[in-house]
Amino acid sequence: FVSQALVLYDFVAEAGNNELSVKEGETVTIIDQTVGGGWIAAQNSHGHTGLVPEGYLQVSRTGETGTEPLLPGAHKLTKKLLPERTDQIKVSPVAAEDDDGEWDDDWDDQSVSSYHGDGHMEEVGASGRSTHGPSVKISLNKFPFSKGPSPEVFLLSKPPNSRDRLPVYMGEVGPVWLYSTSPLDCIIADPKKESKLYGLKSFIEYQITPNTTNRPVNHRYKHFDWLYERLLEKFSSLLPIPSLPDKQVTGRFDEDFIRMRMERLQAWMTRMCRHPVVSQSEVFQLFLTYKDEKEWKAGKRRAEKDEMVGPMMFTLIEPEAAELDLTQVDQQCEQYSRFTKSMDDGVRELLNVGHTHWKRCTGPLPKEYERIGRAFQNLSIVFSSSKYPGEETLTNAMTAAGKTYEEIAQIVAEQPQKDLHFLLETNSEYKGLLGCFPEIITVQKAAVDKVKEADRLVSAGKINNSDRKCINHRISCMSYALQAEMNHFHSNRIHDYNRVMQFYLEQQVAFYQQIADKLREALSHFNTL
Amino acid sequence: FVSQALVLYDFVAEAGNNELSVKEGETVTIIDQTVGGGWIAAQNSHGHTGLVPEGYLQVSRTGETGTEPLLPGAHKLTKKLLPERTDQIKVSPVAAEDDDGEWDDDWDDQSVSSYHGDGHMEEVGASGRSTHGPSVKISLNKFPFSKGPSPEVFLLSKPPNSRDRLPVYMGEVGPVWLYSTSPLDCIIADPKKESKLYGLKSFIEYQITPNTTNRPVNHRYKHFDWLYERLLEKFSSLLPIPSLPDKQVTGRFDEDFIRMRMERLQAWMTRMCRHPVVSQSEVFQLFLTYKDEKEWKAGKRRAEKDEMVGPMMFTLIEPEAAELDLTQVDQQCEQYSRFTKSMDDGVRELLNVGHTHWKRCTGPLPKEYERIGRAFQNLSIVFSSSKYPGEETLTNAMTAAGKTYEEIAQIVAEQPQKDLHFLLETNSEYKGLLGCFPEIITVQKAAVDKVKEADRLVSAGKINNSDRKCINHRISCMSYALQAEMNHFHSNRIHDYNRVMQFYLEQQVAFYQQIADKLREALSHFNTL
Repeated sequence: FVSQALVLYDFVAEAGNNELSVKEGETVTIIDQTVGGGWIAAQNSHGHTGLVPEGYLQVSRTGETGTEPLLPGAHKLTKKLLPERTDQIKVSPVAAEDDDGEWDDDWDDQSVSSYHGDGHMEEVGASGRSTHGPSVKISLNKFPFSKGPSPEVFLLSKPPNSRDRLPVYMGEVGPVWLYSTSPLDCIIADPKKESKLYGLKSFIEYQITPNTTNRPVNHRYKHFDWLYERLLEKFSSLLPIPSLPDKQVTGRFDEDFIRMRMERLQAWMTRMCRHPVVSQSEVFQLFLTYKDEKEWKAGKRRAEKDEMVGPMMFTLIEPEAAELDLTQVDQQCEQYSRFTKSMDDGVRELLNVGHTHWKRCTGPLPKEYERIGRAFQNLSIVFSSSKYPGEETLTNAMTAAGKTYEEIAQIVAEQPQKDLHFLLETNSEYKGLLGCFPEIITVQKAAVDKVKEADRLVSAGKINNSDRKCINHRISCMSYALQAEMNHFHSNRIHDYNRVMQFYLEQQVAFYQQIADKLREALSHFNTL
Repeated sequence: FVSQALVLYDFVAEAGNNELSVKEGETVTIIDQTVGGGWIAAQNSHGHTGLVPEGYLQVSRTGETGTEPLLPGAHKLTKKLLPERTDQIKVSPVAAEDDDGEWDDDWDDQSVSSYHGDGHMEEVGASGRSTHGPSVKISLNKFPFSKGPSPEVFLLSKPPNSRDRLPVYMGEVGPVWLYSTSPLDCIIADPKKESKLYGLKSFIEYQITPNTTNRPVNHRYKHFDWLYERLLEKFSSLLPIPSLPDKQVTGRFDEDFIRMRMERLQAWMTRMCRHPVVSQSEVFQLFLTYKDEKEWKAGKRRAEKDEMVGPMMFTLIEPEAAELDLTQVDQQCEQYSRFTKSMDDGVRELLNVGHTHWKRCTGPLPKEYERIGRAFQNLSIVFSSSKYPGEETLTNAMTAAGKTYEEIAQIVAEQPQKDLHFLLETNSEYKGLLGCFPEIITVQKAAVDKVKEADRLVSAGKINNSDRKCINHRISCMSYALQAEMNHFHSNRIHDYNRVMQFYLEQQVAFYQQIADKLREALSHFNTL
């Protein structure tokens, strides 16, 4: 199959760095999606090839039954179709009604496009590794948009008699979620290539073992995607649900690709496990601990029918603290909005320079060290041919120095995988998380606006005074939820950045120290002056 | 004045590296000759600017009285004129007849071109820092070319009763020159800007102090150039006389340029001092030890009238060893020819990669480290704004890490001046030396060919048997001279490369160690995990 991609943004190649300039709306052919460092190798219609940041591309495939070849104007079509996706899955006869069939469909294997409708294009870099553009699927069918409940509905709805209540406690740092004393965790391992239909269809199955049961369950990528859709639908008004690692149409069975996807699925699951609200949800527990196919299917059906989703979740919030007034709520919201926006900018800049640095460290720089190494060795060979006596110490030392620079070339080229990789992965995760906040903030602000007109609604006779009290209480709950979530975010952020910065610097120290030591060794071969 | 340069060879810019593609025969305008690393900043006729290797350009000036503006076709004109240069200097009324006038002429100050005739262009990178092209002025008016003595003349001429005899001894390594027990050396220092004609003309005067007299003498660049011309004329059939550092028309009074020129003049003088034959010559001693202007002028006049020059020098060689037969002479010559050619290739490759590396280390690489440093610091600022308690340790540590990468950027950018500079300068010197060997080899081969026809010449009655013996003796002397010179070259080469490689590695070790230490310090600011 030929993979094509639509260019989402103008990208000007940095000359001399094997990049490809592309224009928004242009179509390119994907050559290699596994180059790493956030880059994709592509070819344009003039036959020029080069690297493009993966976030600038929207990949589709052509040449497949049931999929339209990429058409001009597909961009607009896709933009309109994308927000509908969640609904399509819900009404899909395969996913919702023919549950058995779900185990046999082609999701993530052969016909992603046809499942999501013709012309659907996957977004590469959706998990936050793109350098531009939306890094999360926004559920446009939720409040405050037309299809979801209007603010009145949820601001006024009675708290359900639900065992799912979400208490917010006052901790040392302010409002916090209820944290379990035995945190959930899981290990993803043992990716196996499985086949069905007599080998006609192949897929990768991962083994996931939670620390609670210590019993492995098996899941394919499409099951992770199903879980993601459920979490998104249920929680995305309340807390950030980052996208899964990218779907990918080519090279899905490459060892490197499988390793990378597993690593990213692991990071995603770890983050979800760490979240006190997400990890305790029924659907998440089902995913990790279902005992057999029957239990899984029943749980799936139940999860898909869950009505306690989106902003309705706010009715479950039970803060232990005094009610906040609207000004306080508004200020908190403003502050979080500014913070997440600034951090998003900071993370993107770090990702940008990281990607540039990755390319230099794996491309021109080691090539130069190799050339220096070969130049030393060549001179050494020439010197050996002089027949002048007493040449040996110098030529041996120069050969050793040359070989050392060849080794340094190798070390330099392999280093980004050792340090920059984790720095970029962590920041990509954060870019994914931060990309979720605008929706959360929008929900809060829409509710705040609605509460601000409460006086007018009372005098217009649309709501009564007791409703108004209820509204005030609800907006205070929303704010406590956001504060608890931001405190969760901050505490994780401090932990994650402390860890990643330390790891990066440790690796960098080891890198420079190793080179210094190697050169010191090379130096010892020379005659002392 | 506007400096223009003729492009000698096609040069394809490496994209993204601030280079300028140029075509042979094209004329460009010089913007900056002091960028270093063997590069010149130039602008082409389309207004594009960028770096070009200095060896690819031949610089002239326009806009000056007495100098024709650069004409199309000047390249060919120049190529024809260049070999004539030595003769022109000899017959110049300024240099040869009006000696006093020599102190007042404009050589190296304001009218280089008019001195050498209209259309003359200086060769930039003539001292061997060019990556292509002739790196030495070849005295085409010497044997074996038309104007010099024919092989018969010098092969048959009687040894003069000269105190200048050049003995060749048999040392441990084979034939060697007579080395003085107290080697000559000199120190060039204290460059002073001097003026004359009431400040209308300015020049730099250097103070040169030889270790023999310990008495400083003053010389301008043009005096060095006069010495170079004398040494070239006298010795260039026998041993390599590398070119002086480039003449330069712009920025001659910049501090950086003066420092660089002085450093290169010092390297050139040190090499000449180290040479047992050159250092003992009357003209070289005159240059270093003249007592007053009268002695200088008398010595100058004598040196310019010296007839013991070029291949005539071979008549002075007095080997203490048995006469060599023609086959041995031929083999030696072949071997040296191969060696010098191979070493020239090796040196050029090292210079090429060194120049490329220089540019990367002073350009894109530090810029990236700076961006990484700023990205860390920006994130730290954002984090500080979170109002989350207990943020300080992380933000302080991230700020420190960011500053460390900014410091690393600085260290990286300054490093080439510390290590690569000396490696490139030494290899440039060797490129200059190696560029002299083709002429030396040509003289030897022409003499060998002449000796090979000795039988025929005897039977044709052109020479008698005693002449033939003399010819055989003379070719053996020539070979001993070449062997002594090659042994001098090898011994210096081993010394120089041992020194420069050690120095380079020492600096590189210090460089990487310094970065490792800095990063270790930055790491210590983080909370232990």
